[in-house]
Amino acid sequence: MTQTDAARLTADLIRCPSVTPEEGGALVLLEQVLSEAGFDCTRVDRGGISNLYARWGDKGHARTFGFNGHTDVVPLGDEAAWTMAPFGAEEKDGFMYGRGATDMKSGVAAFAAAAIDFVRQTPPDGAVILTITGDEEADALDGTTALLDYMADAGEAMSVCLVGEPTCPDTMGEMIKIGRRGSMTAWFTVTGVQGHSAYPHRAKNPLPAIARLMDRLASHELDQGTDHFDASTLAVVTIDTGNPATNVIPAQCTSAANIRFNDTHTGAGLTAWLQGEADAVAAEFGVEIEMNVKISGESFLTPPGTLSDLVSSSVEAATGVKPVLSTTGGTSDARFVKNHCPVVEFGLVGRTMHQVDERVEVAQIHQLKEIYGRILRDYFA
Amino acid sequence: MTQTDAARLTADLIRCPSVTPEEGGALVLLEQVLSEAGFDCTRVDRGGISNLYARWGDKGHARTFGFNGHTDVVPLGDEAAWTMAPFGAEEKDGFMYGRGATDMKSGVAAFAAAAIDFVRQTPPDGAVILTITGDEEADALDGTTALLDYMADAGEAMSVCLVGEPTCPDTMGEMIKIGRRGSMTAWFTVTGVQGHSAYPHRAKNPLPAIARLMDRLASHELDQGTDHFDASTLAVVTIDTGNPATNVIPAQCTSAANIRFNDTHTGAGLTAWLQGEADAVAAEFGVEIEMNVKISGESFLTPPGTLSDLVSSSVEAATGVKPVLSTTGGTSDARFVKNHCPVVEFGLVGRTMHQVDERVEVAQIHQLKEIYGRILRDYFA
Ligand SMILES: [Zn+2]
Ligand SMILES: [Zn+2]
Repeated sequence: MTQTDAARLTADLIRCPSVTPEEGGALVLLEQVLSEAGFDCTRVDRGGISNLYARWGDKGHARTFGFNGHTDVVPLGDEAAWTMAPFGAEEKDGFMYGRGATDMKSGVAAFAAAAIDFVRQTPPDGAVILTITGDEEADALDGTTALLDYMADAGEAMSVCLVGEPTCPDTMGEMIKIGRRGSMTAWFTVTGVQGHSAYPHRAKNPLPAIARLMDRLASHELDQGTDHFDASTLAVVTIDTGNPATNVIPAQCTSAANIRFNDTHTGAGLTAWLQGEADAVAAEFGVEIEMNVKISGESFLTPPGTLSDLVSSSVEAATGVKPVLSTTGGTSDARFVKNHCPVVEFGLVGRTMHQVDERVEVAQIHQLKEIYGRILRDYFA
Repeated sequence: MTQTDAARLTADLIRCPSVTPEEGGALVLLEQVLSEAGFDCTRVDRGGISNLYARWGDKGHARTFGFNGHTDVVPLGDEAAWTMAPFGAEEKDGFMYGRGATDMKSGVAAFAAAAIDFVRQTPPDGAVILTITGDEEADALDGTTALLDYMADAGEAMSVCLVGEPTCPDTMGEMIKIGRRGSMTAWFTVTGVQGHSAYPHRAKNPLPAIARLMDRLASHELDQGTDHFDASTLAVVTIDTGNPATNVIPAQCTSAANIRFNDTHTGAGLTAWLQGEADAVAAEFGVEIEMNVKISGESFLTPPGTLSDLVSSSVEAATGVKPVLSTTGGTSDARFVKNHCPVVEFGLVGRTMHQVDERVEVAQIHQLKEIYGRILRDYFA
């Protein structure tokens, strides 16, 4: 029986210039390939973004395995610094070059190829769903969330989901992500009353207040970490005034703090804590403190269990490496999927992602397809 | 006997455009007027600045009364906003207009006129010295200090000195300055190690350190004031980072604090205290803190006594107002004179100094000359 060539599909996808928000032909190509293989494809476009929903098997089946990934890529950066064509998918010394080579056209190609071969060779008693978005690298407002909204409306569902982002720092197979820390930023504007340095009692200096507030926030231990997460961290990233006159007490200053938080916190809980601290300092110093918060993603954890065991044993069988279960790193679309079903992430080595001369070891694409295929077989066994 | 017209001399001085460092003809005029009146005049020029030393009477006399003042003026500011010619000395409704009208060509004219008439009418058994500088409003590096250096070299000395700066907030006669607070500024640069907000343990964030340091400085009570001084104050005037990226921990940030200190402190003592605080915070946070300090002036006090009583009684006799002895306000050249001899400051109402349409009430110029004349008569009586 013919095997779907995941490396060739990766190359075809790299040749689609799909810098967010451009679809670039990538989803059109996948829709065609998956449709030919018997997948029921639906384009879920929203806010100028293209997304693809593809299901093999019955809607509403109790055993439904889902994959999630993205075909959009980050800009080229310093284009002149590329030594290979950024959308050329040229190969050299066993590596395929191009924007998206690791993040994550290879991942999408690997799970699409694995799914096609699996349903063709051993049609399961269940469904396989692929959710592929064109909006992960930018605001992610109309990407995976649009697909999940569509599924909720259409009565579609995944039982579990595997996100195919690159997860291995150095060696193929070494890391599975079972959760991610949440991320949020708080901006503060402290307003007092301007005055002359010689008469501070006639002014209300906002700077001692911002110093106290930032000291309090930075000194606070959010938690000590959990079994699966490092301790949450808060980084004060800027404090600014812009006052060049040493004989003037300024009226206003600003600051920002970024928090990476584990599952002992929520964005709302941290917002309430920050507001309480700001209010306390504002009252103590007699200044006004305005706070604006942006929660980029909540933390989530899929506790080690059936799903991680399934992925872990397949990775070990294919690579000989026993992966660690990690919650490190930045955010991914798993932060949206976790509201829908248990989700873990596994993919190849992502060392060159977002860089000039991004490249993937061609052998790893085949290996990743093999691992995804094993996962499907084991899941439906 | 003819009286020297202080208002006319003020007008003649206003017509000299002596914006620092320009002499503008002002000192040349005074040198001529004083020489004609029998004063021994010496131009003490240094660093491109003109200054005038004028003595009537013997050098080295035991009773020598000194006056100090400046003929340089600050720039015009918004020239278009002036309703009267800034160097015109035009009069309207009893006021004479022009840059330097209150700060302090009227003061210089009043003490020069008073001194001329005094030595002519009642030649004293003593000397009268006028130290007049062209560098008070800018850096003051080559102004009164140059005159004092000249005096030290030439064996010249004042027994006491009266600085003729405007000292009255609202009403003629209400305030004598018997001291001034010192002023200094400290600039801090805190250097850590840049990093990613998601991995703060790999970075060294300078911001919590600067927040702690500024909080410690701003919270510290320098003193509770003295019999003659308000409490010393420290104002944090700026904290800056300029980091727009919330996912980046910056390598460096800066801040500045301005201190106005009474005679329980010295610039050197405060510098040592600041350095100790910076060192403690640097050690606690594992960052580097560089500090630069500029001491604009030390504090000084001429305790109430013979000199202030002399000035006070003359003011009260001429105006009916009993002046308060104050140490408020910014710095003046009295901060240099205090190393030479006891010094106090008295002058007219300075409300419009440094402003557009600076003006002086013509009657106050005559009144000020009368007060200075009384002081001379009482001193040598
Ligand atoms: Zn990605
Ligand atoms: Zn002045």
